[in-house]
Amino acid sequence: MSSNALEKVSFHMSPEEFRKHGHAVVDWIADYYQRIESFPVLSQVQPGEIRAALPSQAPQQGEPFERILGDIEQLIVPGVTHWQSPNFFAYFPSNASGPAILGDLLSSGLGVQGMLWATSPACTELETLVLDWLVPALGLPDKFLSTSSGGGVIQDTASSATLCALLAARERATNCAGNRKGVPETLRAYTSTQAHSATEKAMGIAGIGREHLRLIQVDENFAMDPAALARAMRQDRESGLTPFFVCATLGTTSSNAIDPLQQIGPICLEFGAWLHVDSAMSGTAALCPEFRYIHDGIEHADSYCFNPHKWMFTNFDCDCFYVADRELLIRTFSVLPEFLRNKATESGAVIDYRDWQIPLGRRFRSLKLWFVLRHYGIEGLQFHIREHVRLAQLFTKWVGDDPRFEVAAPAPLNLVCFRLKSGDDRNQKLMDALNRTGGLYLTHTRLNDRLTLRLCIGQTNTTQRHVEKAWRRIQEEASSLEKES
Amino acid sequence: MSSNALEKVSFHMSPEEFRKHGHAVVDWIADYYQRIESFPVLSQVQPGEIRAALPSQAPQQGEPFERILGDIEQLIVPGVTHWQSPNFFAYFPSNASGPAILGDLLSSGLGVQGMLWATSPACTELETLVLDWLVPALGLPDKFLSTSSGGGVIQDTASSATLCALLAARERATNCAGNRKGVPETLRAYTSTQAHSATEKAMGIAGIGREHLRLIQVDENFAMDPAALARAMRQDRESGLTPFFVCATLGTTSSNAIDPLQQIGPICLEFGAWLHVDSAMSGTAALCPEFRYIHDGIEHADSYCFNPHKWMFTNFDCDCFYVADRELLIRTFSVLPEFLRNKATESGAVIDYRDWQIPLGRRFRSLKLWFVLRHYGIEGLQFHIREHVRLAQLFTKWVGDDPRFEVAAPAPLNLVCFRLKSGDDRNQKLMDALNRTGGLYLTHTRLNDRLTLRLCIGQTNTTQRHVEKAWRRIQEEASSLEKES
Repeated sequence: MSSNALEKVSFHMSPEEFRKHGHAVVDWIADYYQRIESFPVLSQVQPGEIRAALPSQAPQQGEPFERILGDIEQLIVPGVTHWQSPNFFAYFPSNASGPAILGDLLSSGLGVQGMLWATSPACTELETLVLDWLVPALGLPDKFLSTSSGGGVIQDTASSATLCALLAARERATNCAGNRKGVPETLRAYTSTQAHSATEKAMGIAGIGREHLRLIQVDENFAMDPAALARAMRQDRESGLTPFFVCATLGTTSSNAIDPLQQIGPICLEFGAWLHVDSAMSGTAALCPEFRYIHDGIEHADSYCFNPHKWMFTNFDCDCFYVADRELLIRTFSVLPEFLRNKATESGAVIDYRDWQIPLGRRFRSLKLWFVLRHYGIEGLQFHIREHVRLAQLFTKWVGDDPRFEVAAPAPLNLVCFRLKSGDDRNQKLMDALNRTGGLYLTHTRLNDRLTLRLCIGQTNTTQRHVEKAWRRIQEEASSLEKES
Repeated sequence: MSSNALEKVSFHMSPEEFRKHGHAVVDWIADYYQRIESFPVLSQVQPGEIRAALPSQAPQQGEPFERILGDIEQLIVPGVTHWQSPNFFAYFPSNASGPAILGDLLSSGLGVQGMLWATSPACTELETLVLDWLVPALGLPDKFLSTSSGGGVIQDTASSATLCALLAARERATNCAGNRKGVPETLRAYTSTQAHSATEKAMGIAGIGREHLRLIQVDENFAMDPAALARAMRQDRESGLTPFFVCATLGTTSSNAIDPLQQIGPICLEFGAWLHVDSAMSGTAALCPEFRYIHDGIEHADSYCFNPHKWMFTNFDCDCFYVADRELLIRTFSVLPEFLRNKATESGAVIDYRDWQIPLGRRFRSLKLWFVLRHYGIEGLQFHIREHVRLAQLFTKWVGDDPRFEVAAPAPLNLVCFRLKSGDDRNQKLMDALNRTGGLYLTHTRLNDRLTLRLCIGQTNTTQRHVEKAWRRIQEEASSLEKES
């Protein structure tokens, strides 16, 4: 076969076909958002049901795109839990938006690999810039700016950010021997009993040991008790151990409790421990001056993260992770094999983000964040954050006004913890019944060992109408349960 | 303000606006692919140039989408290195395709979080199914099937897969004490001198210590020498150390060398060491029966990974990672806080992929892989893989026919290592001159301590015309260099 003949044989989708099918997918998504409230929020399928409807083997021959897209509707959507439904109040939001989806589409289209500055300078420089933009916008200290000693990087999740912070802290505590020779048994880390499981997982991964994480008790508002932290660290030091890492949470997953950084910071300093601040969901609120108090004391932090992919209308994955001392982070991760050597890296004038993260490869994730910041502007983001907080405060008031219910924890921002006063069993039944209706989706936690429902308001399109409807349903189901018993 | 009035105030992009702007972005991408050869493959900007053209602060007010998209063309594209250009021959491919881009777009649009089965059953079940599809398609052993003792999961990169494998091996070797109490100093791991730096990085992260990784010498074809591996492991065991992990590579980054699994496997078994097999780029070739020999001995592996995001037309990130014993992997990562408890998890009837990876959150990545498999079918994928290999073999022949050049390593598949016989300096000049032209992009490695150029053929749209043109340019630049000296 001649070269010309071969060039004509191709299974690839041509640019013209891409244009046609791409418009169809865009239309499908636009339609999806227009009818999203018609789906049950929580998928109602049984285990194995989705798989059973699909062929057990890969196709030998290619299939027309129309058929593939058609199967999304028929075979996939029934197994989707609709995180983008305005009636989604579970876990935390993972809110998407038009500009983020389109920024991410461009990232897919360009298909660049940003592991090194040289492998796509714009991928690195836009990321550094946009993360610098967010430092003053959130009231973070200047040391987190790339133009200072630190800098920001996009990680996939707050779990990975916590792991990166813990590893950098480990290297600081061991004078980089951890990386080279392994980890001494004496390192101890601290977080509150209410903090995310990510720290425990990271302690295992980093070879320090989950049992060497101390869970510090909380006060009546579920925030870390600084006196208890200081006691634990002192005790450990007196036993010859090395307190090296504290993870404070601004907005715990359970109840959105805010750990007091202004008191925790000086304690970390006294013991030479790295202070990592996890503000995965609630950090976004600091865009509004009236909520920026959550960052009080942030100047003590060695590292910080928040997730635009939770509450800032930026599609997953997008965690913004900042460090005050980038050299330490780079020293933690850098390995330079010959095949990655290049003049720009050796000049020292550029950032190579592969040295700021676990993986080597990385996509152009800052595009979606840049699109969000430009589409909304700071004012647009503030407007929607304020609106979500306002709705959560309204909901808190409604709960307080119904004598069957109680608010179970302070609700400073967009998460409300509440329950029927009539006990765990009744609350479990209420939640299950609500989620079965498909009309809304909420999840639970335990506070003071009592089953507690969580209503988290942060989905992009949630408005007062949705919250009013949710509360009406909750009241109605509670009434039905009363009648049953 | 009444509830109704509030609902009318929104900064969000409406579905109708999304439809319009989405079509524009799809068109931009289609146009980009049609004119991609007009750009210099390697971005020619200087450090800081992209950033300097952008505002130093986030915008207060939102901007029209047209302006944002216009800036892509003006401000971003000059800083892009065009990984999707058919003249991209550097590093390894990171090839994209229409169906993958559109599958990923749907993933963004649905915006689901697949951390638990319950948080979107289709996200988990489609991933499990598609990874099962690839087991027979690549000639992998049945133990990697989810219907057996093992299973597959999509990781972001092969680096993360290596880390997950290393951690599971660490837990097996320490009877899960590593996770709980930290890591003994006696663990030793092994990989070849030619293997990817990911194993060294993972040894640091896992708290075992980079210095506890032994780099095993290679044979004349740059493949691991099994006798040297056995010697190193024996010596370590005799010194009271514990050989616990071997990473074998099928297709090294430098030269695509294939480590001999049939001999390495029994050695790992003898010492009780976990065998991880990294076939990041070249694994895709096993779709073709005539190249499946690279998997000979794969039945010995405890874990395996390959990257559809390298050579299988599936956008980054998509690494397929398989383990033979999923229980061990789950035990390595599982932490179950109250807020993630749910009935499906407790029934044991479902997979919760959060326990198969470092992060907690995860997007619906199997959609793009499913789209690729269905669009191309196995036959379409085989066609393009064969074509890339054919072109690499042609190029190898041309190099061999030019007396100024030599082929520097066996080129079994799609990567050709070659150099001018006239020394490092001349080869460096040749590479720099070629990359400056913008007409193609290739990178280097060192083999036997000699600077060696790499031409890797795997970009989606690379055809014989592009490889012919590349070789013509290489010959012409070599001639110019001769005249200069």
